[in-house]
Amino acid sequence: MQRDIFDAEHDAFRDLVRTFLEKEVVPHHAQWEKDGQVDRDIWLSAGRAGLLGTDVPEEFGGGGTPDFRYNAVALEEITAAGTSGLGFPLHNDVVAPYLLRLANDEQKQRWLPGFCSGDIITAIGMTEPGTGSDLQGIATHAKKDGSGDGADWILNGAKTFITNGILADLVVVVAKTDPEAGARGFSLLCVERGMPGFERGRRLEKVGMKAQDTAELSFTDVRVPAANVLGEVGQGFIYLMQNLAQERLSIAVGAVAGAAAALRMTLEYTKERKAFGRAVANFQNTRFELAEMDTEIDVTQTYVDRCLSEHVTGNLSVADAAKAKWWATDLQKRVVDRCLQLHGGYGYMMEYPIAKAFVDSRVQSIYGGTNEIMKEIIGRALIG
Amino acid sequence: MQRDIFDAEHDAFRDLVRTFLEKEVVPHHAQWEKDGQVDRDIWLSAGRAGLLGTDVPEEFGGGGTPDFRYNAVALEEITAAGTSGLGFPLHNDVVAPYLLRLANDEQKQRWLPGFCSGDIITAIGMTEPGTGSDLQGIATHAKKDGSGDGADWILNGAKTFITNGILADLVVVVAKTDPEAGARGFSLLCVERGMPGFERGRRLEKVGMKAQDTAELSFTDVRVPAANVLGEVGQGFIYLMQNLAQERLSIAVGAVAGAAAALRMTLEYTKERKAFGRAVANFQNTRFELAEMDTEIDVTQTYVDRCLSEHVTGNLSVADAAKAKWWATDLQKRVVDRCLQLHGGYGYMMEYPIAKAFVDSRVQSIYGGTNEIMKEIIGRALIG
Amino acid sequence: MQRDIFDAEHDAFRDLVRTFLEKEVVPHHAQWEKDGQVDRDIWLSAGRAGLLGTDVPEEFGGGGTPDFRYNAVALEEITAAGTSGLGFPLHNDVVAPYLLRLANDEQKQRWLPGFCSGDIITAIGMTEPGTGSDLQGIATHAKKDGSGDGADWILNGAKTFITNGILADLVVVVAKTDPEAGARGFSLLCVERGMPGFERGRRLEKVGMKAQDTAELSFTDVRVPAANVLGEVGQGFIYLMQNLAQERLSIAVGAVAGAAAALRMTLEYTKERKAFGRAVANFQNTRFELAEMDTEIDVTQTYVDRCLSEHVTGNLSVADAAKAKWWATDLQKRVVDRCLQLHGGYGYMMEYPIAKAFVDSRVQSIYGGTNEIMKEIIGRALIG
Amino acid sequence: MQRDIFDAEHDAFRDLVRTFLEKEVVPHHAQWEKDGQVDRDIWLSAGRAGLLGTDVPEEFGGGGTPDFRYNAVALEEITAAGTSGLGFPLHNDVVAPYLLRLANDEQKQRWLPGFCSGDIITAIGMTEPGTGSDLQGIATHAKKDGSGDGADWILNGAKTFITNGILADLVVVVAKTDPEAGARGFSLLCVERGMPGFERGRRLEKVGMKAQDTAELSFTDVRVPAANVLGEVGQGFIYLMQNLAQERLSIAVGAVAGAAAALRMTLEYTKERKAFGRAVANFQNTRFELAEMDTEIDVTQTYVDRCLSEHVTGNLSVADAAKAKWWATDLQKRVVDRCLQLHGGYGYMMEYPIAKAFVDSRVQSIYGGTNEIMKEIIGRALIG
Repeated sequence: MQRDIFDAEHDAFRDLVRTFLEKEVVPHHAQWEKDGQVDRDIWLSAGRAGLLGTDVPEEFGGGGTPDFRYNAVALEEITAAGTSGLGFPLHNDVVAPYLLRLANDEQKQRWLPGFCSGDIITAIGMTEPGTGSDLQGIATHAKKDGSGDGADWILNGAKTFITNGILADLVVVVAKTDPEAGARGFSLLCVERGMPGFERGRRLEKVGMKAQDTAELSFTDVRVPAANVLGEVGQGFIYLMQNLAQERLSIAVGAVAGAAAALRMTLEYTKERKAFGRAVANFQNTRFELAEMDTEIDVTQTYVDRCLSEHVTGNLSVADAAKAKWWATDLQKRVVDRCLQLHGGYGYMMEYPIAKAFVDSRVQSIYGGTNEIMKEIIGRALIG
Repeated sequence: MQRDIFDAEHDAFRDLVRTFLEKEVVPHHAQWEKDGQVDRDIWLSAGRAGLLGTDVPEEFGGGGTPDFRYNAVALEEITAAGTSGLGFPLHNDVVAPYLLRLANDEQKQRWLPGFCSGDIITAIGMTEPGTGSDLQGIATHAKKDGSGDGADWILNGAKTFITNGILADLVVVVAKTDPEAGARGFSLLCVERGMPGFERGRRLEKVGMKAQDTAELSFTDVRVPAANVLGEVGQGFIYLMQNLAQERLSIAVGAVAGAAAALRMTLEYTKERKAFGRAVANFQNTRFELAEMDTEIDVTQTYVDRCLSEHVTGNLSVADAAKAKWWATDLQKRVVDRCLQLHGGYGYMMEYPIAKAFVDSRVQSIYGGTNEIMKEIIGRALIG
Repeated sequence: MQRDIFDAEHDAFRDLVRTFLEKEVVPHHAQWEKDGQVDRDIWLSAGRAGLLGTDVPEEFGGGGTPDFRYNAVALEEITAAGTSGLGFPLHNDVVAPYLLRLANDEQKQRWLPGFCSGDIITAIGMTEPGTGSDLQGIATHAKKDGSGDGADWILNGAKTFITNGILADLVVVVAKTDPEAGARGFSLLCVERGMPGFERGRRLEKVGMKAQDTAELSFTDVRVPAANVLGEVGQGFIYLMQNLAQERLSIAVGAVAGAAAALRMTLEYTKERKAFGRAVANFQNTRFELAEMDTEIDVTQTYVDRCLSEHVTGNLSVADAAKAKWWATDLQKRVVDRCLQLHGGYGYMMEYPIAKAFVDSRVQSIYGGTNEIMKEIIGRALIG
Repeated sequence: MQRDIFDAEHDAFRDLVRTFLEKEVVPHHAQWEKDGQVDRDIWLSAGRAGLLGTDVPEEFGGGGTPDFRYNAVALEEITAAGTSGLGFPLHNDVVAPYLLRLANDEQKQRWLPGFCSGDIITAIGMTEPGTGSDLQGIATHAKKDGSGDGADWILNGAKTFITNGILADLVVVVAKTDPEAGARGFSLLCVERGMPGFERGRRLEKVGMKAQDTAELSFTDVRVPAANVLGEVGQGFIYLMQNLAQERLSIAVGAVAGAAAALRMTLEYTKERKAFGRAVANFQNTRFELAEMDTEIDVTQTYVDRCLSEHVTGNLSVADAAKAKWWATDLQKRVVDRCLQLHGGYGYMMEYPIAKAFVDSRVQSIYGGTNEIMKEIIGRALIG
């Protein structure tokens, strides 16, 4: 099915991203995988190329186009290129909305230009060692040092599975600021590189996404000035809820793009590879496998595109975002696994992109709220 | 996801169909299931209500709106009501295009008014006892009795699995008219009730769809006048190919509607039914089952709706119609089976609509080209 | 995999059963399906042939061989023959153990000879309209009319989904006899044909198993003498628990036999049926489908056979019986559905045995404790 | 289900293996994963401990017990311990039978003592860059240098995906020795470390099994003496066929052991890990997942154990081995994937054993003949 949600400007942006990846990223990615993180310079290059903050107002150096389809285009291309080390989607799709919606003018002036230039790499700290998808179990806490709106906060706690954790210059930390207030007792504190007591733990060794740095962060009596609180004190949990739909949609977009890329490379492989005297693609079983995957991807792409359209007009429901997230990531897992199998022994060799797709994609059904959590959300919306 | 392909006129037509079904059909359907066919009068009522030939020009008594969404609305409502005995979709979605596109003026005058009033019930004869989805294996044949364009055809052969087979007044029969010409040797002959040598075999007892008459037809030296040939001699196979996409889309539309209806009744049932002291819907396993089905249906509905939009503008590809057909009917099977299971013992009792949905829906992945054939079509399009 | 649990005597009994079914049952089964129940005489014939009560001591007219493999053989043959109307498995596998283990001498004298001759057809009444797998929710209750061990019980309530409900002469009814005693407040009362206040409701129309009578039973002030209480008062629930493993194993045995029969007929069909110029079995997709089903059946048969061996020596655990039940019945559903699909349009025609297998087998994952209940049992045993 | 195929001596051997792994292997495995291969010394230790050649006659230093259950025990423990770097199963289960059945006395004297002591590490070279499961496509070839039985062979060609490829001292190479003779034109040539023209290519980087060396081998005019031909010239293909069943059974044994280990660690994890205030194992969805996996593993273990018993008595059919192979490896993939998911974010961290199990197990459905090939074998046996 022909996709129908992009216009010529999106296509032009897609070309730009693709060229950027081919020239600036792909040649270095294998090295970055060995390093366990990308080179900081690639963020600066991306900033120059206009890949960071496409929806940030131009006055702050951004693209000035508040249209999530640009984010989608970037993510699709990053996924198709297998350049999973780039933490741009976390920066653009997950962190940006917090800064754009919640930062006051002074904060915008302070952070957004660096956000767009690549000088300020961002991260968000939600998950904790003892707390997965259950955000209400967050134990990281901040206490006011004194009274009055201007008093500093003293932050203590630990976060884990933090994308861009090592490279990040600015981390939006979710902390409990009022232990008595339940869901209304969380706030968002911006912790900056170099603040005393803010330590990075080790870089976590993951199944895949080897070039994307993921780390534990710890906060020991970190003094966070009141000027670094994002939005209103006590509203943190509500802010998270407001932004999770976009994060989940972003994951879904990447998932379909990943599945489609896997199918493309498998189609090519099975058309070339011979067995028992003919192309593997010409065996009926292969043909059916390819047809089934092509169908599933097409059906899912159409749904995710519809979600994208709804999100652009502000109408994407929490339940629909949850549907897109679990469905598309499960699809991606199924497709990548089947595609790997169709590569035979080569599928198990890391030099083949399908192998990297296999290890990279396995996290998709877990982060951004596990797929089980998605089903809870949908089920509850349904039963009422 | 809110559906976005219908406007107010479609909604009004939906109300009309729903009211018609509730008043005229539902009260009699159980009896028709016992009878193995619907009462002829319901066709006349449907004609009066405007349910037959919505896309036939008004001059012939039709609705005059060549917009397949009306067909979709009718089919969705028929499916949701569980009134599977009504052979209208075969008449409206499958046979109508042959008459509209291929009939000459005289034929249109002769057949379309009855088609729209319900006086002429139609059927199409493709499948044969020894020929399933392999249309090229058709053995029914017609030979010219004499020469010249005006000569009669003498038709011999047998067809099976013919929907509306018993009630039909006009059957479009696919026959080989030139055994030497391969795929270019088939023609469409319109056989009418009462023609000598045209016999109905027994009404076939099926797993479900008990009120829909399905029969074997036999033709022994049936003399078919040249005036009853539809379109050009020798083009029959091409005509079939041109119309199969619409037939498959129609099946897909019914499949999603059937799945959605099954989920609705199951949601209601599990919210009311108690086990171990609480509503069945409140068990986590049930909630996940419902959430998964709701997602699958939503995703598939979006795709089928997109196919509908494409079809309305004449852009639906054969491969996309095939995708919609196999995917949606497999979905329906999965959903109906899971829904039945959630009804426990009651799911196995015919008085519960889910039981009827179970037996009715099982044929969907078979007719209109089996789902295996669909995968062949998609696979070949993909591999090139 | 060659089965290894039967010896020559079992094989001889298998021949006997098979011959009996071919001669006495198969020729009449279609009529019984129309009647909604089998002819009483078939029970008498089965009694004469030695098919009822193989494990009942010879002094009561039984086979005298307490070896559940004979039950398995009978069930396998009944299933393979598609003679689902015969309620023998319920009689032999489910009710017999209650009579053999719990009946006192007088009761054995009174009931077992008729049980073995086919004069006394039995049933068991557990499920109630508002109570599925949740046995503790049973509302049918009996109150003593007077005091002392010899006092009659006055029984009130209703049961549903009762196999052999119409034909049964003796129904073991589970009733609450002490509303205060929780799980220790249930007893087993034997209700006999003709007792005032014992009424049969309508025969329930089911998706399949059309010749097996299934009914609602109602009890209005039915006076049940103390001599008709089975086992000890208050122990009913414990007795149920003790016998459920055998019931579930029995269902599993039938399920594998049903799946194997479906595969056999499909193998035969696809080897004969031609499409596109060759046998359907020779398409790679068909070959893979057949291979997958053959594997699943073989693996499952081996497990169920192992369960049978364990059961014969009294070592089958409740959890293993639950595993066999859900796994084998899910297998049967999967296999029968795939086999039907491989029959194409003929699979939907009731004259084909695969169609009957489809509608007959759908209840297997529901009765005897739904498969969801099985998973609860296994999960709890696992987590501890 | 209690396993019933092992006796006290197998249990004692299991303890020995387990202790060996805990003490000698586990502490070094992480380092070996970084190295891409195990330390040669571990082979010598294993030899001393009696883990190599349990079925080699004692006169050659072997265990003298031709009972494949010992091989199974070793493999199960290696898998459960996650010590996938040990290439012992390839040595013991795949190569040993060639040497035992085909080597002449002189060859046995020359190779078996080293085989058992760990001084001679073995490998087998079947697969080639352009030839996967299609063994008849083998291009590596050897030509006699002169005539007469004693003439040397000149070997040319390349092999890939060779387990123990780097460490191997003795490689059984399948080569075409008579290009005219079809399936009867292959022979087995033993190539030894140091033979001129025998080169190891790079160590292949795989998705998992990081400590197991896998390599490409190349042969350029390698002079192989006639004394190094195993069995009869021209019978190579038949020898392969005779040994593939054991190789596949071996993979199946490892697959069930891997699935069972994954479930055990997940059971433990979910019982300890809390979410939303209770243990993850106590959520109904988790309980059902665990119950489903426990069932599947139990059913499959029973089948594989039955295959083991049949193999010990020489009765395992090629089709049954193929069933065990594809079914068990698919099971392992399903189970490991679900178990990883139940670990949430930790499942994606390599420090958790489930993560290693995920990447290690992915090859199982590919090597030893892909699962697709298994289905071909079974399907053909079935259709006849």
